[in-house]
Amino acid sequence: MVLNVEVCKGLGVPTCQLDMEMVERKGKGHPDVICDRAAEELSVALSKYYLEKTGRILHHNVDKCVLVGGQSNAVFGGGEVIEPIYLLLVGRAALNLPKGERVPIGKLVVKTTRDWLSENFRFLDPTTDIIIDYRIKPGSVDLVETFELGVDVPRANDTSFGVAFAPLTETEKLVYMAEKTLNSPEVKKAHPEIGEDIKVMGVRRKDRIDITVACAIISRLTPDPDHYLSVKETIKDIVYKLASKITEKDVEVYVNTADDPANNVYYLTVTGTSAEHGDDGQVGRGNRANGLITPYRPMTLEATAGKNPVSHVGKTYNIAARKIVEKLINEEESVEQASCYIVSRIGKPINEPQAINIEVYTDSPLNVIKTTAENIASEVMEEMPRIWKGFIEKQYELF
Amino acid sequence: MVLNVEVCKGLGVPTCQLDMEMVERKGKGHPDVICDRAAEELSVALSKYYLEKTGRILHHNVDKCVLVGGQSNAVFGGGEVIEPIYLLLVGRAALNLPKGERVPIGKLVVKTTRDWLSENFRFLDPTTDIIIDYRIKPGSVDLVETFELGVDVPRANDTSFGVAFAPLTETEKLVYMAEKTLNSPEVKKAHPEIGEDIKVMGVRRKDRIDITVACAIISRLTPDPDHYLSVKETIKDIVYKLASKITEKDVEVYVNTADDPANNVYYLTVTGTSAEHGDDGQVGRGNRANGLITPYRPMTLEATAGKNPVSHVGKTYNIAARKIVEKLINEEESVEQASCYIVSRIGKPINEPQAINIEVYTDSPLNVIKTTAENIASEVMEEMPRIWKGFIEKQYELF
Amino acid sequence: MVLNVEVCKGLGVPTCQLDMEMVERKGKGHPDVICDRAAEELSVALSKYYLEKTGRILHHNVDKCVLVGGQSNAVFGGGEVIEPIYLLLVGRAALNLPKGERVPIGKLVVKTTRDWLSENFRFLDPTTDIIIDYRIKPGSVDLVETFELGVDVPRANDTSFGVAFAPLTETEKLVYMAEKTLNSPEVKKAHPEIGEDIKVMGVRRKDRIDITVACAIISRLTPDPDHYLSVKETIKDIVYKLASKITEKDVEVYVNTADDPANNVYYLTVTGTSAEHGDDGQVGRGNRANGLITPYRPMTLEATAGKNPVSHVGKTYNIAARKIVEKLINEEESVEQASCYIVSRIGKPINEPQAINIEVYTDSPLNVIKTTAENIASEVMEEMPRIWKGFIEKQYELF
Amino acid sequence: MVLNVEVCKGLGVPTCQLDMEMVERKGKGHPDVICDRAAEELSVALSKYYLEKTGRILHHNVDKCVLVGGQSNAVFGGGEVIEPIYLLLVGRAALNLPKGERVPIGKLVVKTTRDWLSENFRFLDPTTDIIIDYRIKPGSVDLVETFELGVDVPRANDTSFGVAFAPLTETEKLVYMAEKTLNSPEVKKAHPEIGEDIKVMGVRRKDRIDITVACAIISRLTPDPDHYLSVKETIKDIVYKLASKITEKDVEVYVNTADDPANNVYYLTVTGTSAEHGDDGQVGRGNRANGLITPYRPMTLEATAGKNPVSHVGKTYNIAARKIVEKLINEEESVEQASCYIVSRIGKPINEPQAINIEVYTDSPLNVIKTTAENIASEVMEEMPRIWKGFIEKQYELF
Repeated sequence: MVLNVEVCKGLGVPTCQLDMEMVERKGKGHPDVICDRAAEELSVALSKYYLEKTGRILHHNVDKCVLVGGQSNAVFGGGEVIEPIYLLLVGRAALNLPKGERVPIGKLVVKTTRDWLSENFRFLDPTTDIIIDYRIKPGSVDLVETFELGVDVPRANDTSFGVAFAPLTETEKLVYMAEKTLNSPEVKKAHPEIGEDIKVMGVRRKDRIDITVACAIISRLTPDPDHYLSVKETIKDIVYKLASKITEKDVEVYVNTADDPANNVYYLTVTGTSAEHGDDGQVGRGNRANGLITPYRPMTLEATAGKNPVSHVGKTYNIAARKIVEKLINEEESVEQASCYIVSRIGKPINEPQAINIEVYTDSPLNVIKTTAENIASEVMEEMPRIWKGFIEKQYELF
Repeated sequence: MVLNVEVCKGLGVPTCQLDMEMVERKGKGHPDVICDRAAEELSVALSKYYLEKTGRILHHNVDKCVLVGGQSNAVFGGGEVIEPIYLLLVGRAALNLPKGERVPIGKLVVKTTRDWLSENFRFLDPTTDIIIDYRIKPGSVDLVETFELGVDVPRANDTSFGVAFAPLTETEKLVYMAEKTLNSPEVKKAHPEIGEDIKVMGVRRKDRIDITVACAIISRLTPDPDHYLSVKETIKDIVYKLASKITEKDVEVYVNTADDPANNVYYLTVTGTSAEHGDDGQVGRGNRANGLITPYRPMTLEATAGKNPVSHVGKTYNIAARKIVEKLINEEESVEQASCYIVSRIGKPINEPQAINIEVYTDSPLNVIKTTAENIASEVMEEMPRIWKGFIEKQYELF
Repeated sequence: MVLNVEVCKGLGVPTCQLDMEMVERKGKGHPDVICDRAAEELSVALSKYYLEKTGRILHHNVDKCVLVGGQSNAVFGGGEVIEPIYLLLVGRAALNLPKGERVPIGKLVVKTTRDWLSENFRFLDPTTDIIIDYRIKPGSVDLVETFELGVDVPRANDTSFGVAFAPLTETEKLVYMAEKTLNSPEVKKAHPEIGEDIKVMGVRRKDRIDITVACAIISRLTPDPDHYLSVKETIKDIVYKLASKITEKDVEVYVNTADDPANNVYYLTVTGTSAEHGDDGQVGRGNRANGLITPYRPMTLEATAGKNPVSHVGKTYNIAARKIVEKLINEEESVEQASCYIVSRIGKPINEPQAINIEVYTDSPLNVIKTTAENIASEVMEEMPRIWKGFIEKQYELF
Repeated sequence: MVLNVEVCKGLGVPTCQLDMEMVERKGKGHPDVICDRAAEELSVALSKYYLEKTGRILHHNVDKCVLVGGQSNAVFGGGEVIEPIYLLLVGRAALNLPKGERVPIGKLVVKTTRDWLSENFRFLDPTTDIIIDYRIKPGSVDLVETFELGVDVPRANDTSFGVAFAPLTETEKLVYMAEKTLNSPEVKKAHPEIGEDIKVMGVRRKDRIDITVACAIISRLTPDPDHYLSVKETIKDIVYKLASKITEKDVEVYVNTADDPANNVYYLTVTGTSAEHGDDGQVGRGNRANGLITPYRPMTLEATAGKNPVSHVGKTYNIAARKIVEKLINEEESVEQASCYIVSRIGKPINEPQAINIEVYTDSPLNVIKTTAENIASEVMEEMPRIWKGFIEKQYELF
């Protein structure tokens, strides 16, 4: 088998040397990320169920989900959810096992979703603050066939892309880590007022980085505007402290800039997510597979969440591309930055993509890097038929 | 007012000179594009209603929508929709006019959607093949406030991006025009078997472009496999003919590559869209505002469809950026390629973005271009408070 | 086969001689009756489909349906529906034909419902004023088996009742005819302001009958309160005129008694049904199979609408009982009044009910009547296996 | 105030002396009864909420609810719910308190329903086996007005009936007690295999009573057909034992007569209710307010469940009528049987019904009874403005 690998030198400068960057991350409590998570956890649960019952992962694609924001009346010191969030999971899945057994799809949807919600939100009651509904149908014949035809190596179920790049720039690291830190168990313990819905936007102009944080504050734990302001200060401090470890550039941090105390406008929530009041969400509208939104970088529009981890290359090629660039960075010291693009053709084995393009920033001669890059690409493609394991073991960051 | 405009030289080469490109376009019958259209037509209908009743465009954000594919039994020469498509429109909107009048939101949703469906699909009966439902709630207080505070210049209702680039490469033009041509009235008249759901993927490796077309064929008009094959040949011919006008590169065209005649697998549909059977959709998962998906190009994750055209910069800045790059290309002959990134800060006037970054490929000195670019950026920002008109008059391509 | 027929003499006096009577009828535009109709029309459509495709009527039971009232802003001279009515049809049906063909259940639901709505409402637009949804699942195995086991004579699919009585008293006739007349084409033509949602309550105390009519008035055709009052007068006149043909008793007619002009409260509707604003509905909550609600008479709680006309005795035994009492009244002049009760046992042939009880008011000796009654019961039971024809030809009044 | 009370002698014989009777009771696990309960518990929760917040019970009418049966795969010794039950609560309620506070309607619906389900079903997991949804809208203006106008005495919000009779016949008692006993804690403890969905039908022909019990058996606790048969025998024994205490008539008991062991058809359930697989339900389709369905007795079609307990006479008059007949039976020993019918007129004070009709079987002179009956009616009507208390304290049997 000959892989179509194109290795080329990056032209221009690595992203960290550009004059500008814009980077965004939506935190785990953001309505779009809730949808991503709902879809992916369902895919994992389905995959495990299929494996246990049949020894293989049957066709499914549950990569659509819409969240209709509820209504709440958060006020300083209290409030409650008035109308629950409504979460509708949508997709396709094999609903009958080969021996005629029915897949308990409804139970899988409802139970899986309640479970991870419980683990991830401290103040959202998954039995009363959210209605979980689903419309999962059996797959279309064509796609099912495409999938089941694959005996040894699964076939790509669509013509689509995966992309990745490495390493992260300082701005990217800072945006990413800001959310991770604010949502870490340590911070939550010390400052429980900090809700789970945290959105971070970073804009770098040359050596200055502006970080804008929008963070839902837990109303019950925040008795008054003064307390609220102190929580905002805490958030700023945490991000400044983090920044000092990541970058030497000038950093400015802004928190909840839409607040308008004169008009009594604060970002208060009962549950820690804006989904409780007014904000809707969908799968695939938030972070890319590396946890970031980066318009200055290659991105795919494919949602990774909810797609089946065996044949849906729009999901798996993002991870394969990431493996390639990370290995390359590790193995070739001279490579400052690498990007990888992989495109499939529907119906072909997943380890025979239509093309792999690897772009490297290096001062080594290209032919040196080229061999390494091609070898790495081969290795990663050889592992493709087993890449699904990492998904169901939740080894990969996906959103 | 001083604009934060950064003009910089593109480093490396313009996209058309890269070794590789990957470009995708989902056609108007694709489930994701149906959702985009549903959201945007509703925003337009709401905007017009608000204007007529109050003289201004009230807050709304209807940029979420999920389509649950139906079930059909398309067979050569016939078939019918067995279970209708289910379309759920989700969002926020001002539901009470200042004088207490109620907005007929349900009627607007249902009537608007049926109307454009009728105009755009020849074989989908909008009264029986689709169930149109909605969950549109009043907006959250914060956002409403943000919006209504704007007296002269509206305030940005979020911290988000807009991006654009120009001109299109040949690959991009070809992918874009392939779908447009196959969905043109002329082609539909001559070859009515060609359905509306057309997805085109283009992969260029140096001087060779592979175009993969997935096209739903109308079952009723296609009596047998031979006829089906002849339609596929027709599609190829149309794309080859188009390619010969756009590029001198080697072009190879593939159509419906997942077909598997031995197993009786063909891409037949009753209605012209895969939404009838097995394919689900969502807003913002398809083409970017220029009608393409381009991982080698700057892209935003913001869905333009359904957002309000006054204050939602995640929508309007894409068009503003496009205006900037197109003007720049037109005014400065030496500019081979330009990209523009604009980022807002929530609560600030929409004509005072946090930053505008313009990247140009040119052999002129940067300072010459810089002045032109800054002037263009200023002009476009001055027009920002009136940019909404173009949306409600449907002047801008959005998906 | 020996039928368990019990014939007994009515004790006391026929209903028309009681001191009191209470009788109610909900008209065709009432939300409950809309649900009844929706369920029954779907059953007829399904039955015809099954017959055409397989030569027999497969199992179905679509006797649940809920209507969620919309919101409208009816005002004198105009108004519109703001939020559509939501109609959810619920039930079970065989969804796969013996040869593997899928039943187009969704299309049947949506198309059937739109069609009869169009025919029955002049001012309700079935494409924008109502959302038609459904949750119809395949039947449970047990019931399907029960049904398909029947080779010659179908088996009762439940242990349930049917009841009937004849003739109607004057009060019953008047209540029944009042609605029929007000909803007749002639009255609608002459007085188009009279909406379809008409509820009539009759209370007789000895020789006086009070008739209370609640009638939705069409807002667009009613410019002002004076006009509204004149329509109410017209309704009164029509009912008084009708009453004079039916009874010599004192009749008093009241129309829209909840009106409160001082507080600007009138019964105005845009569409002719209160379902447009605030009134919800369900199957089986309105008239019994004879078109009336009669607490002084035997009634069953079974909804006739939507049940399958072959094996569901909770539907068919009401008609069988009606046939028995009507024949008996016709054949035996001395019988002033007759009631009939039939009860099935699940799993037994439908022409072998657990018991038939016929109660007669007559001055003839019981043994004379008894023979006739038993013969009639036998005849009607012999016809049972073919009674379904009358349902799908809509020969029987059902609500 | 003069009450329109008509007291008359029953003509003929009391029901227990008729040649035939048919009596039915649906148990607490029946899909229709689940809907009744859901509606009524919500009304109680709303009433308590309103009382606590405003000191009075605001308008609501949540008397519609539909249950869409799930899918399960009950087998001897196990099984699980594959698709959850879907429960949709529908109605109207005041959603804004006078001071502008929003009613947490969604939380009330979801929490209330989960709570009583937990208490009433041993094997139904309310967090995974059922999806609870709702469509509760603000009330229509007219009805709200009608209600809020009532200062001292609430006004009837509809023209409707209430009826009652006493005492129960032996057949009625037996049917009623059979379900109560089979669903009692003692029986559940001794025979946990007996599910909650129990339907009892009694048919008396002169001195013989046939009791048909349909009882869902818990699959997990029932390893095989032999065990299943032994549970059926246990049920028979319990009913026979009960019968021996209630009546001296011949009683024959049948259990699960649709079973067909040759075709492996048994009435097995995972959860104890047929709602898990194939059986749908609605409010108001089950037992009347006295817990029975009795075609030989006066019945109303009004659903008592879910209606507001202050102004909705279709609910409260059933209890008022019951109080009247029970008091009359207690106070006048000579009265063998009494029935009472009460009819309202919309907009009139609830203690001034249009008419009250009391029918008595007695060998005393009517004028003796008449005075007592009129006095009782007066007393009960005097209490009407406070009758709501009994509803929110759940003092009255309602279904």
